Amino acid sequence: MRPQDLIEKKRDGHELTRDEIAFLIRGYTRDEIPDYQMAAWLMAGFLRGMTDAETQALVEEMLHSGDVLAHDYIPEPKVDKHSTGGVGDKTSLVIAPVAAACGVAVPMISGRALAHTGGTLDKLEAIPGFRTDLSLDQFRDVLQRCGLALIGQTKEIAPADRKLYALRDLTGTVPFRPFIVASVMSKKLAEGIDGLVLDVKTGNGAFMREFDDSRKLAEMLATIGRRMGKRVTALITDMNQPLGRWVGNAVETFEAIECLRGNLTGDFAELCLELAARMIVVGGVETDVEKARAQARNAITSGGALERFRTCIELQGGDVRVLDDPRRLPQAVNQRTITTERGGFVARIETDEIGRVVMDWGGGRRRLEDKIEYGVGLQIHAKLGDGVRAGDPLVTAHYNEESKFDEMNARVRAAHQIEEVAPSPQPIIKAVI
Amino acid sequence: MRPQDLIEKKRDGHELTRDEIAFLIRGYTRDEIPDYQMAAWLMAGFLRGMTDAETQALVEEMLHSGDVLAHDYIPEPKVDKHSTGGVGDKTSLVIAPVAAACGVAVPMISGRALAHTGGTLDKLEAIPGFRTDLSLDQFRDVLQRCGLALIGQTKEIAPADRKLYALRDLTGTVPFRPFIVASVMSKKLAEGIDGLVLDVKTGNGAFMREFDDSRKLAEMLATIGRRMGKRVTALITDMNQPLGRWVGNAVETFEAIECLRGNLTGDFAELCLELAARMIVVGGVETDVEKARAQARNAITSGGALERFRTCIELQGGDVRVLDDPRRLPQAVNQRTITTERGGFVARIETDEIGRVVMDWGGGRRRLEDKIEYGVGLQIHAKLGDGVRAGDPLVTAHYNEESKFDEMNARVRAAHQIEEVAPSPQPIIKAVI
Repeated sequence: MRPQDLIEKKRDGHELTRDEIAFLIRGYTRDEIPDYQMAAWLMAGFLRGMTDAETQALVEEMLHSGDVLAHDYIPEPKVDKHSTGGVGDKTSLVIAPVAAACGVAVPMISGRALAHTGGTLDKLEAIPGFRTDLSLDQFRDVLQRCGLALIGQTKEIAPADRKLYALRDLTGTVPFRPFIVASVMSKKLAEGIDGLVLDVKTGNGAFMREFDDSRKLAEMLATIGRRMGKRVTALITDMNQPLGRWVGNAVETFEAIECLRGNLTGDFAELCLELAARMIVVGGVETDVEKARAQARNAITSGGALERFRTCIELQGGDVRVLDDPRRLPQAVNQRTITTERGGFVARIETDEIGRVVMDWGGGRRRLEDKIEYGVGLQIHAKLGDGVRAGDPLVTAHYNEESKFDEMNARVRAAHQIEEVAPSPQPIIKAVI
Repeated sequence: MRPQDLIEKKRDGHELTRDEIAFLIRGYTRDEIPDYQMAAWLMAGFLRGMTDAETQALVEEMLHSGDVLAHDYIPEPKVDKHSTGGVGDKTSLVIAPVAAACGVAVPMISGRALAHTGGTLDKLEAIPGFRTDLSLDQFRDVLQRCGLALIGQTKEIAPADRKLYALRDLTGTVPFRPFIVASVMSKKLAEGIDGLVLDVKTGNGAFMREFDDSRKLAEMLATIGRRMGKRVTALITDMNQPLGRWVGNAVETFEAIECLRGNLTGDFAELCLELAARMIVVGGVETDVEKARAQARNAITSGGALERFRTCIELQGGDVRVLDDPRRLPQAVNQRTITTERGGFVARIETDEIGRVVMDWGGGRRRLEDKIEYGVGLQIHAKLGDGVRAGDPLVTAHYNEESKFDEMNARVRAAHQIEEVAPSPQPIIKAVI
């Protein structure tokens, strides 16, 4: 078998066999197939398409390119959640402790902020001392001791995906469903989970802006997961405005702590309770979703979830005092309010642009090697449908670089569309698959 | 400008500007753009297509990636010929001296044998001592002194093509018309020519098997050449059987010498006279093709062309005694005849398979770094339409490896289709563009 023959086969629109895909992924992981041949194959796949069987083979080969964990030492069901990425999405920090408090173990391997979207790891690392780079042994130990563990991707897990993702990022082959599915599922299935809850975002702050694309992605992810013997629920959720009231890193960690401390108002808390409930059901702890929602709510109001999070922070080296004194989280130097020049109703928010404003002000990354200013962020005052008068605040900006204020002020204003008529309200949960 | 943005632009089917193509080709030639990004872009171009303007920009950028020669020191018109590659095609060895004898200077930069096709350089290097690796100064000197010079590609000429060709070969992006055109024309236009004759092969021994594909390629090559201010004639010629009576290296050199010594029978001589005549017309020495054919014929019968070749061989370090004593050319150890088991008419010859038999017996290369056995080759006894009786010879094989005889015998026989009815004869020149 020669890589160029498989490139030509895909170029000409033919389906590759499982052995052929195995040859490519194994050869590439072992550095036997060069980047340039893989790049040509990726582009051929992107433009010619991949069949269901090819995608399945890709997932399995990428999954088995590294260690596949098994947490047999834990009696509880193991369930994780994966989000396709959005703006203001700090749900993991809430639902992992909530699910753990409800009897579901959560071995969660997360990613970092990239482009306009945030990343769980950066929000966790906003807690002074919190370490996300645990060894797999430490990961297992934390998981066993508090029912949740929150780390970043390790070199042992799905190494094929690490190489392929870096290559796709530089070769225009990222936004293709079979590759996205293979990347997500190879990592998640390696975590040693029994079930998975998927939060597929849809709207102008998501990678998939159209509902139909999000639905297809959700279905493909769920199908692959179920075929691999996992219980999977996929939610399609709205990302046409930032989730909750804060966008940034430390500020989102603060908002997650507030939720764990009992603030259960708004779209963010609603989504947290739903996702946690679905994890509880997928884990088999409860069969009725309504009862599971009540369990999740109770885990928060009882303080049980907050205690789980406290233990997790402690075990992962973080300063637990942030839970009681949020001023111990990193803070930006300046605060200023950005107001609307026009009254009416908030009819549209360019959510990706809000994410980019935070990124460009230092709160995110353009490239994975960029440094983050943890304290930078925006407090969202006006959500979709809210009535505002001229001069009312849209956001409060927390930032360090004063020189950028005028530009960011203009961008934030331009990202808000104010109309005379209120838009029809949209549910946060748009579909369950 | 970032390479990945241009990859995405092409991936999504958009036309790149001249500046964008310049950015890619210059960056790649200077090693600033990595192979993997270029590979993804090549595949995107292959599958999405390239417009006329993009192809034109590609040719010009590849041309100007290195030196562009100018032979102002020579008063004669400068004309070259390029063939798209076939089996038994040794025309360059004849027409370069013929054209030179008729007042056309021929600065010819040629290629090597690859896959089932032969290469002019290997046939020349079958002459003991003949050097094709002249410096550009030596190339100019030989051209000035005898009106022709025959060398291989140098590092100064179209370096972008050298890098791109090697990459295309390994990434399944070779058989795509705009890339083929850019590769051919960037090299040829750098030779410092006023005119070019193209010999676009069509049939089962050519890279383009279908007439329509060959015609499109010929038209694209001619259009680009003319747009760059060159006089261009393109012939589409038949490659449904080996050209002439020999396939190999030293054996083809022998056949070319025989032609220069006055053997003007058969398809090979006919094509040589036509190509040389077209070079004479393209060079402006003569306007009437019929008269140019007569001039070409006269250059052979007068011995003038042979003398030009003698001087060229001498200036390029070769042993001129091969012209009078062909036994000084490399010889294979063994000779055996391969016969037909069935009588009738030769209705079809798998020409590419004949080329591969020679390659697999040591007379060609699978990869550019392979060594060639110069003496290996086949003498063709039965041409298309010839009547044969069972037991009549199809070819005489000249070879070194006896152990391969049975396999090759079977392959040669299988490559000849004998029918009861003679096929309708096909002209060697199928079209002039």
